[in-house]
Amino acid sequence: MTGAFAADPRRIALLLEYDGTAYRGSQYQEDGRTIQSELEAAIENLTGETVRAAFAGRTDAGVHALGQVAAFDTRAWLGAAQFVGGLNHFLPRDIAVRAAAEADARFDPRRDARSRLYRYCIDARPVRSPLLRDRTWHVPRPLDVEAMRRAAKRLEGTHDVAAFAGPYDGTTVRTLRRCEVTADRRCVRVEMEAEAFLPHQVRRTVGPLVEVGSGRMSGDTLAALLEEAKPSSAGPAAPACGLYLVSIAYDRLDLGAGKGNGRDG
Amino acid sequence: MTGAFAADPRRIALLLEYDGTAYRGSQYQEDGRTIQSELEAAIENLTGETVRAAFAGRTDAGVHALGQVAAFDTRAWLGAAQFVGGLNHFLPRDIAVRAAAEADARFDPRRDARSRLYRYCIDARPVRSPLLRDRTWHVPRPLDVEAMRRAAKRLEGTHDVAAFAGPYDGTTVRTLRRCEVTADRRCVRVEMEAEAFLPHQVRRTVGPLVEVGSGRMSGDTLAALLEEAKPSSAGPAAPACGLYLVSIAYDRLDLGAGKGNGRDG
Repeated sequence: MTGAFAADPRRIALLLEYDGTAYRGSQYQEDGRTIQSELEAAIENLTGETVRAAFAGRTDAGVHALGQVAAFDTRAWLGAAQFVGGLNHFLPRDIAVRAAAEADARFDPRRDARSRLYRYCIDARPVRSPLLRDRTWHVPRPLDVEAMRRAAKRLEGTHDVAAFAGPYDGTTVRTLRRCEVTADRRCVRVEMEAEAFLPHQVRRTVGPLVEVGSGRMSGDTLAALLEEAKPSSAGPAAPACGLYLVSIAYDRLDLGAGKGNGRDG
Repeated sequence: MTGAFAADPRRIALLLEYDGTAYRGSQYQEDGRTIQSELEAAIENLTGETVRAAFAGRTDAGVHALGQVAAFDTRAWLGAAQFVGGLNHFLPRDIAVRAAAEADARFDPRRDARSRLYRYCIDARPVRSPLLRDRTWHVPRPLDVEAMRRAAKRLEGTHDVAAFAGPYDGTTVRTLRRCEVTADRRCVRVEMEAEAFLPHQVRRTVGPLVEVGSGRMSGDTLAALLEEAKPSSAGPAAPACGLYLVSIAYDRLDLGAGKGNGRDG
């Protein structure tokens, strides 16, 4: 569908959900399918325009998103709501636009983000779950959720988080606003919220937290590793499949997120 | 692995979880992969025995199970727990044995079942969800959960449920112990529990309940259809992908189900 075009481009912001299992990550790569390449193809199919879409957060191969934010410029005469239906028609079943909004012409989804919320899901039951495969990390031993919760609390605040990242050029000081561990029948969840994260910081934090939950590392050791701030010293990252980019907050953009189901939910 | 064999066979009961998306249903078919054919192949790989596995409930192509029960006879010298690990090694990622137990030699998972619990999940948000695809029925309109709940309650008890089944040889009287509708952010859920169901009864009940929730059918009309008991009159079945066989209860078999995650779940 290629309709009429406006002289000046508008910037459109999109709220994206995706199952990252089949993709080589969010960002465009020379070879292999990525969320970005699929989104740009859908935009081209809908409007006839070849665009570059900017993403708020870089997600790795296998990482999922409930609320990734992307932005692109268009001259197409389509309302924001029409972009939702139109792009979902062309996107594959494992990617969807949940909402769209007109954004300021200078809106930058990455730089303007006020905070990012990630969730990591762990299935700690003895047997692997077919229905949770590719959606959780299966850790087949009981986890001491209370020990994980206490250790996670000590990571909150402003710290040099070098221990929880690979080699990185630039400051490794970050402010973790929230690092919470909860559990229900289905999963043990770690939620982390910060203005910005280092690459792999969430997975490299969950890895040692699971060591704490397994009784293989003490909360004091984890706190000492944070304090020491030696790059990559906290141990291996948790696998990608358990990680979800849940939401990104902005000062002046409301993508209204997905409404809940039913009327008493 | 083929070890020593006992002279007399023992009957082993299994608790199965599966993602039914890739299968042509639970029961063996001439062509196409089924849960039964995969399970029997795994048993043969583990014990060297060619067996027929009996299932408690017949699930259609695309229907999932959290707690299907199967039974088979073996002469292999393996403890029940060894069957869990051993079969999961050979089963594909979308099928798992969650628990195993020694059963009475006359145990019949279908005939001995005291009750069956099914759950049906509906995603009633406007946009399709990539992470819930093949796991829920996407109904892109708001549902009046309270109206569905009231209509569902009227289906409970002992009735001729012919309106909610296709052509069926034999009595169509069934006792629905529970028919409950709940909702949270993620899904609208219909749970139905009975000693036995007619083929497709759950999906053929959820279909008209969603019509009630959409305001396209009144609760009185649904009750009248039940009363009239004219075969297939309640309308089309809900799709397979939203249906889960949750659990099956027996008088003298405890498969202990899957324990929950964490310590405060």
